[in-house]
This record gives sequence, C-alpha cells and structure tokens, in this order.
Amino acid sequence: MSETNDQLEQQFLEHMYTMNAYEQALGLMEWDARTKIPDKGADDRAEAVGRLSTELFQLTTSDKTAYFLENILACNEEEVTPWIRKAAEELKKQYDRSVQIPSEEYREYSILTAKSEAVWEKAKEANDFEMLRPYLEKLVDFNRRFAEYWGYEKHPYDALLVDYEPDMTTQVLDDVFSRLHKRLQPLVDEVASSPVKPDTSFLFEPFSKEKQTAVSSNILRQMTYDFEAGRLDETAHPFALGLNPSDVRVTTSYDERDFRTALFGTIHEGGHALYEQNLPQQWKSTVLSDGASMGIHESQSLFWENIVGRSKAFWENNYEMLREEAGQAFDGVTLDAFYRAVNTAGPSLIRIEADELTYTLHIMLRYEIEKQLINGDIEVKDLPEIWNEKMQKYLGITPPDHSSGVLQDVHWSFGAFGYFPSYALGYMYAAQFYHAVRRDIPEFDTHLREGNLAPVKQWMTNHVHQYGKKKTPAEIIKEATGESINPDYLLDYLETKYRNLYSL
Amino acid sequence: MSETNDQLEQQFLEHMYTMNAYEQALGLMEWDARTKIPDKGADDRAEAVGRLSTELFQLTTSDKTAYFLENILACNEEEVTPWIRKAAEELKKQYDRSVQIPSEEYREYSILTAKSEAVWEKAKEANDFEMLRPYLEKLVDFNRRFAEYWGYEKHPYDALLVDYEPDMTTQVLDDVFSRLHKRLQPLVDEVASSPVKPDTSFLFEPFSKEKQTAVSSNILRQMTYDFEAGRLDETAHPFALGLNPSDVRVTTSYDERDFRTALFGTIHEGGHALYEQNLPQQWKSTVLSDGASMGIHESQSLFWENIVGRSKAFWENNYEMLREEAGQAFDGVTLDAFYRAVNTAGPSLIRIEADELTYTLHIMLRYEIEKQLINGDIEVKDLPEIWNEKMQKYLGITPPDHSSGVLQDVHWSFGAFGYFPSYALGYMYAAQFYHAVRRDIPEFDTHLREGNLAPVKQWMTNHVHQYGKKKTPAEIIKEATGESINPDYLLDYLETKYRNLYSL
Repeated sequence: MSETNDQLEQQFLEHMYTMNAYEQALGLMEWDARTKIPDKGADDRAEAVGRLSTELFQLTTSDKTAYFLENILACNEEEVTPWIRKAAEELKKQYDRSVQIPSEEYREYSILTAKSEAVWEKAKEANDFEMLRPYLEKLVDFNRRFAEYWGYEKHPYDALLVDYEPDMTTQVLDDVFSRLHKRLQPLVDEVASSPVKPDTSFLFEPFSKEKQTAVSSNILRQMTYDFEAGRLDETAHPFALGLNPSDVRVTTSYDERDFRTALFGTIHEGGHALYEQNLPQQWKSTVLSDGASMGIHESQSLFWENIVGRSKAFWENNYEMLREEAGQAFDGVTLDAFYRAVNTAGPSLIRIEADELTYTLHIMLRYEIEKQLINGDIEVKDLPEIWNEKMQKYLGITPPDHSSGVLQDVHWSFGAFGYFPSYALGYMYAAQFYHAVRRDIPEFDTHLREGNLAPVKQWMTNHVHQYGKKKTPAEIIKEATGESINPDYLLDYLETKYRNLYSL
Repeated sequence: MSETNDQLEQQFLEHMYTMNAYEQALGLMEWDARTKIPDKGADDRAEAVGRLSTELFQLTTSDKTAYFLENILACNEEEVTPWIRKAAEELKKQYDRSVQIPSEEYREYSILTAKSEAVWEKAKEANDFEMLRPYLEKLVDFNRRFAEYWGYEKHPYDALLVDYEPDMTTQVLDDVFSRLHKRLQPLVDEVASSPVKPDTSFLFEPFSKEKQTAVSSNILRQMTYDFEAGRLDETAHPFALGLNPSDVRVTTSYDERDFRTALFGTIHEGGHALYEQNLPQQWKSTVLSDGASMGIHESQSLFWENIVGRSKAFWENNYEMLREEAGQAFDGVTLDAFYRAVNTAGPSLIRIEADELTYTLHIMLRYEIEKQLINGDIEVKDLPEIWNEKMQKYLGITPPDHSSGVLQDVHWSFGAFGYFPSYALGYMYAAQFYHAVRRDIPEFDTHLREGNLAPVKQWMTNHVHQYGKKKTPAEIIKEATGESINPDYLLDYLETKYRNLYSL
C-alpha cells in the first residue's frame, strides 16, 4: 500500500470518527430523554436533537464524504485495507440513500420524530388515538416520500425495509411468514384447546422494585454483561443503547405486581447489550461497529430472553436465587410449576408481553398494516379499525381500548416503518442459531444448569458479534448455521417445547 | 426594519440555535461523564467530546458566522432588533478570540482537557502530583500560547481572565484583593485568638444519604428551584449545569459523617441553578442565554449558600425540619448552638469546605499562583512547594498531603486558568447585592424566618437573572447596587457577623 493511500485511509477514519462523535452525542441525548430528562426539558431536547441530527446528516452527505468514498472505492483491492474498504462500501450505501433527501426535509423530519415520541406517550396514557393521528399522518407522508426517493423494484415498503434488514424484500417476507403461519396456527389452536392450564397466580404476588433490580443485575452478570462498561436504569419502555463498546446501557421497567416485565425485559435488552459490548474494538467508532441488522440484533435479544431465559435448565440454576429475593411469593411453588407458569401460551393483546408461541403473529399483523400503509392502500385514520380487525384475524381477540391496541408500540411514533419484521426475523434467526449452538456445544443444557453462560456468549461472539456490520445478515446466518433463513427451526423448537408443556 | 434584515435576523438566530444544539449535547455529555458514565466509557467519551467541541469550534469560526456578524453589525442601530444586535456583539467577542486559535490546536486541547479531568481524579485519590504534572504542563503551555494569541495590555493573565469575567484585569484585582486582605486579616486573627470555641461535635453524627437528600430537595424547593425543569443527582464534585432554562441540573456529594457537604453544596449549586432556570425564555438557545460572568454566577451561589443559607433567620425556619430528618443527631442542640456550629471560622485546608471568613484567602493564593504560572515566573513542577508556602502565608497552615493541597481543585485539570478570581468577585458581589436587597426588601429576615424565599429570588431575577449576558457584570452591579464593585460590603458583612459570633 502506497503512502498516499495510507494517508487517505487515515483521513477517512478521522472523518468516520467525527461522524461517530455526533452519533454518540445523539445516542446519549436519546438515552437521557428516556431515562433522566426533567419533564419541561423534553421540547427543547427535541429541538436540539433535530438540529444536531441535521448537522450529522449534512456531514454524511457532504462533499468530503463523497471525496473519501470515491477515492477509496476507486482503489484496487490490494491497495486498501480490507476492513476499511468494507467500511467505505457500507458508508456508500448510507450516503446514496441520504443524498436523495433534501436537507431541510430531513431537519423537519428529525424534529418531528423527536417530538412525536413524547406525544405518543401521552396519547397512549390518555387512550386517545386522535392525539397522535396528525403526527402519524405526517410521519407516514415522509416515509412514503422517502420510499420514492430511494426507489424499489416491486413494493415501496421494500425501500424502507432495507434500513432495518439489508437485502430483505416483501417477497421473501411474504414467503417466510406464510410458511411460518401455516405450521404455527394449528399449534396455537391445539395449545388453546389443551386441557392443561398451568397455575400462574403466584406470578402476580408483590415483588419490590429493589429486589427485582437485584435479580436483574444478577442475571445480567451471569450473561457476562460488563457493568463497568454499562449500567442498568429504569424507564417506561425498556431498551438497550450502545454509545460505543465501552458504554452500553440497559434499561428496564418494573411492575411490582408482575416481575416478568422487568426480568424478561432485562434479559432481552441484555442480549442486545452483549452484541454491542462485544463488537470489535478495532473498528470502534466506524460504520462497521454496529449490528449487522435489526433482525440479527433481535436474534440476540430473543435468543437470551426466550431460548435461554425461559428454558428449564436456566431456571434449574436461578430459581432458588429468585425465590430468595422474592420473599414468600413462591412458597410451595415447585421449579416445574414455575417453569410452566412462565411459559404459558395463548392469545394476548400486548406484543412485548406475548409468549413465544404467539409472538410472531403480532408481528405479521404489523407487517401487513405497514405494507398497506406505505403503498397507500390504507390511511392513518383507518388504523384503529384495521388493527382490531387483524387482531381478531390473527389472535382471535379484540383490544378493549387503543392503549392496548394500535397505540401500544412506540415504533411508528419515531417514524420506524419497516422495523417490526426484524422481530420475527430475529426470532427465526435465534432458533436457527440455537440449533447450531447445540450442534457445537453439546453440553449446552449442563452449562445453563451450572450458570455457566460464558461459552454460549462466546459462541455468539465468534459467529455474530465479532463481525459487526462487516458481514450481511445472510452471510452471518449461512456461515453460522450452514443454510439460509429457514422458519422450520423456530417451528421445530416451538413444537417440541409446547407439545411437551401442553401434553399435546 | 426592512424585510431583508428580518430575514437576516432569522437566519442569524437559526445559526445560533444550531451552535447551541452542540452546546446542549456537550453539556449533557459532561453531566453524564460526571454522574452516570460507566468507568470504561470515560476515554471514548473524552474522544467524542473533543471531536464534537472541535466541530462546534469550526462552526463558531466559520465564514457563515463571519457573514452574519459582519452584516448585522454593519446595520444602523434602528435597523436591527436591539437584543439581536447585542447577541451579535457578544458572539463577535467569542469569534474574535476563537479565530486566533488554529483548529487543530483547539482539537488537541479539547481532547486533552476532556482526558486530564479523569487523570486529576485519579491523581488526587492517589495523592500523586507527578501523575497529573505532564498534563498540567501541557495545559499551561496551551494557555500561555492562547494568551499570546489573544493579546493583552499589561499582563498575559488578563487575556485569560476575561473569559470568566469580561473587562476584568489583574490591575483591578490586585487593588480589590489588597483592600480586602488588609481589613480581613486582622479579623481572621482576632477570630482565631477569641476564647469562644463553638461546640461542633454534633455535626459529625451519622446522617444517612437518603435523609440528606430529603433535606436538600426540601430546601431547593423553598428556594423555588423547579424540579420539573431540573433534577438532583449524586457526584464526587458538586456542580450545576443548565442545558437550557427548562433543563437545569444540580448535583451534590454526600458525606454520611458530615451533612454540611451535601447541604451547603446543594444550596450553593441551587443558587447557580436559579440563575439558569430564570434566564429569559425569549433569548433561549442564543449567546445571551447565559450568565453575565462567572463572577456574577458565583454571586448567586454564594449569596444563597452563605448569606441566606448560613443565616440565623434561615435556620429559624429550617432547623426543626433538619432535626426531624437527622434522627437523634441534634438531640439537646439548641438553634443557637447549631447556628454557631455551622458558622465556625478558622484556617482550613480545603477551599470548598472553607468558612465565609477565610474563603477569599484561598482564592488570593490561587490567583497569585495563576498569575505567575501564566507569565512564566513559576513552572508546574514547582506548584506543590509554592502551594504549601502560600498556604502558610495566607492561612498559617501547611497541607499534610497534595490531595488536600495543590491537587484539591479540578479547575486547572480542565484548563481553567483565570476562573478562581470569580469566586472572590462573586463573594464581593453577593455581599453588595445583599446590601441592596435589604434596602429594597426591609422584611428580608421575616421572609427567611417564614421560609418565604420567593421575594428574594424575585429580586435576583429582576436585577440579575433576566439580563442573561445582555449586560456586563459592571453594568449589573452598578444598576442593582448604585456603585461599582466595592469590597467593603463583604468586609462589613463579615465584621458584623463574626464580631457577634466570636464576641469581639
């Protein structure tokens, strides 16, 4: 490599580091807005976030960025350090999309998204869809325009989808979801009509926030989450946020009459956090220091939350600890009864509280709505009605109010149309990884039983975390499991587990 | 005003709002670095802060800024909205200083200051001056160069001083400090040799952090601090930080064996916070939405901490509340005994724990050192020795170690040379304001006795807060009190109070 290229690479790195400084600032502003900000500060924060995002947007679409991309991508392969070339390719994708959007439009959109999340919170509390409607309408308009700017082959929704899952299309999703639904629905029906009805009453005994925090922290430590490079806070809506691999924060929300909210929420976010903490230090503060996709990210959270966190082996290690923290709540409750209780399955209203079995049905519903919304088949004003219809279709129940219906999720209020499919993809990836983990680590259950989660985490680091955004989701899943995405692994996992639990 | 000017003003405002978004982000990053950041995140944060500060620096010194300043300041007075013109004048001052510094030098300096604060913390803990020395040497070198870039009439230190106190000079400070010292020293000596020795033993009874937080919050509320536009957190070193008037945060540190640390620390920072919360909303996110100077800012904190917070009338209202929170700590301690205990005076090692009487001596010492350090009369390596000599000269004691000596303050570690005089200036301003407050509000003591602090806060808002940075410190002090800075008011206040306390 010539000296000139060396210099070019160094300058390109500096440029990425600077862009990343904005991202870290914006990430912290988001974390703070959701955990610590005083009430009256929310509006000015939204304004500041909008302005700073726009600054970053202008930097991303600047001539300087174009210069680096052009010059690095023009080099022959042997003239550029491979990972830096890969970073340039990744940034090029982002650049190509961003330059389509006029800067002023981007600024308006940033301020809108920063503000409407707070409106959503109030609308949900007030059970008032009309409060959020004008914001949603604007957000949908923006996203429809973005889809046109970005272009697509078959469906405008594809243009949004790739923001969350590179190379994904509605065509693939339609196929995968229909295969999933076909085998899943009969299983859901069988479970619903099974005479087995696990006792769950003890799940709702009082359980203090302090004690729940102790349990959550304990389990995060078992998962090898590094508290010196992170922290656990309380929020209304749990999330994990990595500013950089040395500062990855988890939040959870507490319900003192249902410990599962915090417990499984923490394990879920902990799965995301492990991904972020184990991204390669070498690529820190570049575009490669990120999850491969939202779907792969969700595979990590759902793997830990469900496949590990709701397994018998995991609770063989942790149930005693939980009982001790819980006071008398589980007196007389056997491990087996506890395991069955935290794995009850059946139609429910709220996605984030849904069980493993019905979870993907909640996603299919949202996917259908988003597709139609973006191509103009339906309008925002129709959402409450359509939501309720689809709940009836997929889950056989109708929400009693909008708070537990169409207003339940934050995503649309910050403009994330195309995000939801990631959850279902992540679930399918997780089950596919699980199959491979068991192949590679036959002592999987023993490790869990002994609270030895490090080898499992290490497998994920070796096959997923360490690649950051250098590999595509398809490459990661193929190399780790030997085949492309295949919903059968999730179906096999669910059938085995739930046939056993419900004596089918 | 022509339409063109209207447009120019609007664009100029937009430009300031954008710069302010950076400031808010950097402010939050600083708050977080001092209160919430995980250990391992500190280095990457310093890097990100350095980069983002540099971006802001480049924006401040950009052609765009120059364009606005040139065009707005070229207008006739009647062509521009007066406060916007004032903002342009203020920004011009900052611009003129910043353009002198090469951008690359500024970036190095930003990263250095962001890093060395953490080094200082470790050095202080390890009582190891050598650990900090190389950082301080670089910081002093930078500041010496900055002074040359900025220029000065008589003393290079003047060039730094005006960053904290506009229009201030070593000549004025030399004069004011010498007048102060002349009358103060005899009083300090007399107090030292007084046979009156108040009992202070009960101050060191155990007092839980939770109870101390309750007391601190209660008093902040009395001061009219708005918790919906702020919050109270724990830190190693207390500070107040205003991101904007709707988000002004206070931190305090707790010593469970000395409640005074948190209590008076909170009142002090609360005084700063009232200033920031009451800055005019109209000028929000512009250069005028800031304190007039560090000295005026300190006048607010010291007024509340000492003149209000250590007064008999204040405790007539609050002592019962404190006793209730304290458990048995003050059993049998009369209000008078308590009042005397929290007002004991005498030489001590630590500035932030110093009493009212000797506080300014700590400042004079630092002022002398800084002057000599900046003009090259002394070097960083000599600091420990010089520190101890001057402690002997001013306070008659020698620190047993560097942690309680030259390493005690954070300021130099973030490059703040010229800041310390603000504390003494603030103290003199505070006493001068006090004189004027009593003139305007004869029921001052009665208000304090009744916990009715709103009229006092309102006086400060009317005479100080509402002007933000639109008036100079000299204008504010002159208009509020009828004369220029005059150390006699502080001396009168101290003489009256301490002659009474020590039966002189």
